[in-house]
Amino acid sequence: MIKAAVIGATGFTGALLARMLQAHPEAQPAVLTSSSFVGRRVHEVFPEIRHEAEYVAYEPSIVSEMDVAFVCYPHTQAHPVVAELRDRGVRVVDLSADFRLPAEDYPEWYGFQHPRPDLVQEAVYGLPERYQEEIRAANIVANPGCFPTGMLLAVLPLAGWLELDLVVVDSKSGVSGAGKTPSSKTHFSTVHDNFRSYTEIGHRHAAEMIGELSRAAGHKVPISFTPHLLPVDRGILSTVYCRPSAGTKIPDEAALRARYEDFYQGKPFLEVREHAPALSEVQYTNYCRVAPLVDRQAGLIKVVSAIDNLVKGASGQAVQNMNLMFGLAETLGLEGRQ
Amino acid sequence: MIKAAVIGATGFTGALLARMLQAHPEAQPAVLTSSSFVGRRVHEVFPEIRHEAEYVAYEPSIVSEMDVAFVCYPHTQAHPVVAELRDRGVRVVDLSADFRLPAEDYPEWYGFQHPRPDLVQEAVYGLPERYQEEIRAANIVANPGCFPTGMLLAVLPLAGWLELDLVVVDSKSGVSGAGKTPSSKTHFSTVHDNFRSYTEIGHRHAAEMIGELSRAAGHKVPISFTPHLLPVDRGILSTVYCRPSAGTKIPDEAALRARYEDFYQGKPFLEVREHAPALSEVQYTNYCRVAPLVDRQAGLIKVVSAIDNLVKGASGQAVQNMNLMFGLAETLGLEGRQ
Amino acid sequence: MIKAAVIGATGFTGALLARMLQAHPEAQPAVLTSSSFVGRRVHEVFPEIRHEAEYVAYEPSIVSEMDVAFVCYPHTQAHPVVAELRDRGVRVVDLSADFRLPAEDYPEWYGFQHPRPDLVQEAVYGLPERYQEEIRAANIVANPGCFPTGMLLAVLPLAGWLELDLVVVDSKSGVSGAGKTPSSKTHFSTVHDNFRSYTEIGHRHAAEMIGELSRAAGHKVPISFTPHLLPVDRGILSTVYCRPSAGTKIPDEAALRARYEDFYQGKPFLEVREHAPALSEVQYTNYCRVAPLVDRQAGLIKVVSAIDNLVKGASGQAVQNMNLMFGLAETLGLEGRQ
Amino acid sequence: MIKAAVIGATGFTGALLARMLQAHPEAQPAVLTSSSFVGRRVHEVFPEIRHEAEYVAYEPSIVSEMDVAFVCYPHTQAHPVVAELRDRGVRVVDLSADFRLPAEDYPEWYGFQHPRPDLVQEAVYGLPERYQEEIRAANIVANPGCFPTGMLLAVLPLAGWLELDLVVVDSKSGVSGAGKTPSSKTHFSTVHDNFRSYTEIGHRHAAEMIGELSRAAGHKVPISFTPHLLPVDRGILSTVYCRPSAGTKIPDEAALRARYEDFYQGKPFLEVREHAPALSEVQYTNYCRVAPLVDRQAGLIKVVSAIDNLVKGASGQAVQNMNLMFGLAETLGLEGRQ
Repeated sequence: MIKAAVIGATGFTGALLARMLQAHPEAQPAVLTSSSFVGRRVHEVFPEIRHEAEYVAYEPSIVSEMDVAFVCYPHTQAHPVVAELRDRGVRVVDLSADFRLPAEDYPEWYGFQHPRPDLVQEAVYGLPERYQEEIRAANIVANPGCFPTGMLLAVLPLAGWLELDLVVVDSKSGVSGAGKTPSSKTHFSTVHDNFRSYTEIGHRHAAEMIGELSRAAGHKVPISFTPHLLPVDRGILSTVYCRPSAGTKIPDEAALRARYEDFYQGKPFLEVREHAPALSEVQYTNYCRVAPLVDRQAGLIKVVSAIDNLVKGASGQAVQNMNLMFGLAETLGLEGRQ
Repeated sequence: MIKAAVIGATGFTGALLARMLQAHPEAQPAVLTSSSFVGRRVHEVFPEIRHEAEYVAYEPSIVSEMDVAFVCYPHTQAHPVVAELRDRGVRVVDLSADFRLPAEDYPEWYGFQHPRPDLVQEAVYGLPERYQEEIRAANIVANPGCFPTGMLLAVLPLAGWLELDLVVVDSKSGVSGAGKTPSSKTHFSTVHDNFRSYTEIGHRHAAEMIGELSRAAGHKVPISFTPHLLPVDRGILSTVYCRPSAGTKIPDEAALRARYEDFYQGKPFLEVREHAPALSEVQYTNYCRVAPLVDRQAGLIKVVSAIDNLVKGASGQAVQNMNLMFGLAETLGLEGRQ
Repeated sequence: MIKAAVIGATGFTGALLARMLQAHPEAQPAVLTSSSFVGRRVHEVFPEIRHEAEYVAYEPSIVSEMDVAFVCYPHTQAHPVVAELRDRGVRVVDLSADFRLPAEDYPEWYGFQHPRPDLVQEAVYGLPERYQEEIRAANIVANPGCFPTGMLLAVLPLAGWLELDLVVVDSKSGVSGAGKTPSSKTHFSTVHDNFRSYTEIGHRHAAEMIGELSRAAGHKVPISFTPHLLPVDRGILSTVYCRPSAGTKIPDEAALRARYEDFYQGKPFLEVREHAPALSEVQYTNYCRVAPLVDRQAGLIKVVSAIDNLVKGASGQAVQNMNLMFGLAETLGLEGRQ
Repeated sequence: MIKAAVIGATGFTGALLARMLQAHPEAQPAVLTSSSFVGRRVHEVFPEIRHEAEYVAYEPSIVSEMDVAFVCYPHTQAHPVVAELRDRGVRVVDLSADFRLPAEDYPEWYGFQHPRPDLVQEAVYGLPERYQEEIRAANIVANPGCFPTGMLLAVLPLAGWLELDLVVVDSKSGVSGAGKTPSSKTHFSTVHDNFRSYTEIGHRHAAEMIGELSRAAGHKVPISFTPHLLPVDRGILSTVYCRPSAGTKIPDEAALRARYEDFYQGKPFLEVREHAPALSEVQYTNYCRVAPLVDRQAGLIKVVSAIDNLVKGASGQAVQNMNLMFGLAETLGLEGRQ
């Protein structure tokens, strides 16, 4: 049994990780830390997690005997903990943004100078459909952002196959993506029966998208990204418009779908579909569904992708990464409803 | 008092029209027709409409003494009624798609040969922010589709000002846009807590968008349009990505906003905003809010527009058109919550 | 024109009052106070209120020239302001609970000794369907709680007509009843797709119900009240089970409905219905609908009542009270959608 | 492996059964029948069920080799199928109402004369918390209605312990309880942001409640039952008001809770709680939570119970019954999220 710690186990992603690890056949949530619930039993705080252990305060020493630690802290608060645990030899899956970008990009996108470029260098971007081999050997996995996960899985099969001139990413997310802290923005009366965009220019997840897509494409691709807030709890649906460079021949839909099916051959959580997926098809699961479509009139390829933001977009993908890191079947503990 | 008929007064748009006309200071819903509710009192069928008249079966003779008729039939069923009423001299606002396109486009987009190209020729596209003068004199007003209304109000200020190379229109609509007829697609259990795109390629409203935008721009602009279904009853939010041709200088945000404010000077229902609007800011009103933003990194202009699909996108705009046709203040009966 | 002040004009009830007064033909929101938005324009804070004035900090002197003040403070914070304004001669409609109960009941139900029993004595309980005459002459109107409004309008026709042995009040409220302050209880992810009861024993609104019903019945009636939280923004639906004393003959449904229609004869906002109302029939209006039904098998009368908690349950009823206090038609400014 | 047939496998309860059986460690959905989807693959119709078999048309012969059949037909359509299967020796769990009442009650409550009183006599009411032993031996299990399940689990511990004079059952159900067939009542625009009661007098589920509670109490208890429709997909929350006969001493809350804990000792899916449960605590699970509370002021006991209407209220309970019928652990395949 893999002994796992969840650092910050009472936020949305941490609590879901605790539940998934509790049900995992080869792992157990041996340490669950919390700042606000120390001493309270898990089952009492989260009735749906049937686990009788108590939350403890975080201290590196109690984590140091773990096989793996999942760090569920906000960005800028995660990297000191990751460093501390790595220095003690614990393998880490970090759910924050602190190890996703090249070290030199942190001042621009996150407003701080990263103190541990060595660890950033060591970290592997935890998108198993792309970096499966690297993840197996990784000591630090930077679990991708929820929006980049959905977007990259929609576009990666095109990168290097067609030359792209512009990618427009129009994403719609459930409210759980905004986290658990109450604010007027997440008040029921604000969100219910409503819809809006936010951070229309310069959202930080664009940095991951630009970096990873450009790396795959071999050149920098302009990306226009707009997140929107759905009156829904879970899921991200992204409609991605990929315009090939002038002169590029646009394939027909059968060839396009064949490319996607080929690209995702053997990837257990990727489902290429003929019809655009609804959020309900993936909510509470680790699956990602993508449907690539040809819009010949406008001269572009339209891809609709759907994931659950807390599962494939966070905690489920983290477990998938753990499975790879420890030589387990990639799908272990991930096939049912989470 | 203007005597108005609503033909098809028990669907979503017809019922709203009946209520708005009932509250209008210079008009009255003198004839309300229905196929399924003949003989029943309005207030009994719609508790929120405090009108004691009875629904009658449609017959041209009972409408012929009206000053204006609002035709709320589905496309292909509306044009015979419009023709019948025009031949009797009644002015018509048609809420269907039967008079919005050039006659020769109907076979391609709607699958039928239009029998009355003369009337199509005579009809004015009822977007008051663009065709105010023509509407004043019109005998047939083709009330615009809900998606084209939101999209055109977002983009028209750019047409002719910047040369556009591509327009991506990502629209999200409330369920009332799908009409009142029950189906598995509008079942609560299908829509609630869910989100999806539909008719990703070739939606008929694209025809209106392409036609009107190209006319305003002076050349054909490629448009990629995707409608989505929100778990919300009312409203359309469109995120519109406008890419200028290579070499076109993109203005800064202040100049861009100045262009929009200038363009919509004196248009009472258009509000140009610095921040992207939420649906809740326009639901149940005849207002349209647009926020034009510069995405310099991707090299394009992003415009967010919000309307209520049944008010500004249908019945409210129809009343606005009636006001113009009869020389009334454009805002009469349209300022409060509908 | 009646000059009105709204004290606390940026909470849910205060903002709605400001909007309703703005649209009222005989009143104007001349002073709007706020603690957090001083100096900001109303239209900027609430896009849907087309009023260009600025919020000011509360001070008795700026209110003293008003004809009426609506106090929208929480209980225990309202009574000092009411006292201050009354001492300056301003007529007051208080939306808090501070003047609804007999002074001697405050320690038990609200945990404080009321400092101004004289003003409590002077205050009139602002339920126009019961105290119309007293309200006309009142200087302090204690605007009823939202739950008591819906419950009393359901039960008052029975009081004194049948001898009641037990009244069970099962109420379901929209989230706006919990106010605007963000908390984990009003977080979208908590409320959405969910339902729960709260304060199952000893909710303070039971005090108003018991007091007013017992006064009307002439004897103390046991009441069991349970509020529940709906994933809906607006409205309260109460299902009220009224069990007559043993030996009381239960009328048939026609006689029962006749009693209700008779009791509410001439009350413009009360609609007695044969079929139980849905929330949507009253949301955003000042109407209350009640349907009294006979459950002969169980030996009781079941009454379903529906109101909008912020309109008839708060701000609309406050305007209705103002109309009465100033000799205006009771329905002025209250007939449309609010 | 138990070979199971699901007769009517594409409605809400049938599809959920198929999914649960697919994931069950000791059973398999060997035959899935459908009238409208014959020949289509399960996974294609329900993307969330990863089962590649095809739907077949119902015929007794293809079911006759099964160990058990779950009949998911509407009432009056189920009993002929149950009879046919019983005559071939197949054990049956019937999810309809056709075997829940004494045969002589069908004319009054369901409007038909039951043709097989012998089978009705043989059938066991499938509430495992009450009839565990009888279910083990049963050949026909009449799976209880969703409302009776939640209500009976709330009240049974009181029956025979206190003498009850009146039980008021105020139930609120998610929309999935109304089934999959589209109608104006289940249209998103009707249900969303709305709430209402229905069948306020004489709902058929009252027959089960009265029958089972009276049997347990040893005398007939008057019950007033009102179902309501929540804008939620899944779950039933019932607030049950139990008034003891005059002169009965009402226990204190500790004694009351002790009674419930004692009564449900060893029942794996029953959780007695101090605080009233929210729907979210049980949705998508087979658990039922009950919180018994004392309302001393009104002289009654208030019990809040929550279940998922499709799991514990239908398909989950059906699997629980199958587990008992085949000597398996009662909880097999039922502990996670369904």
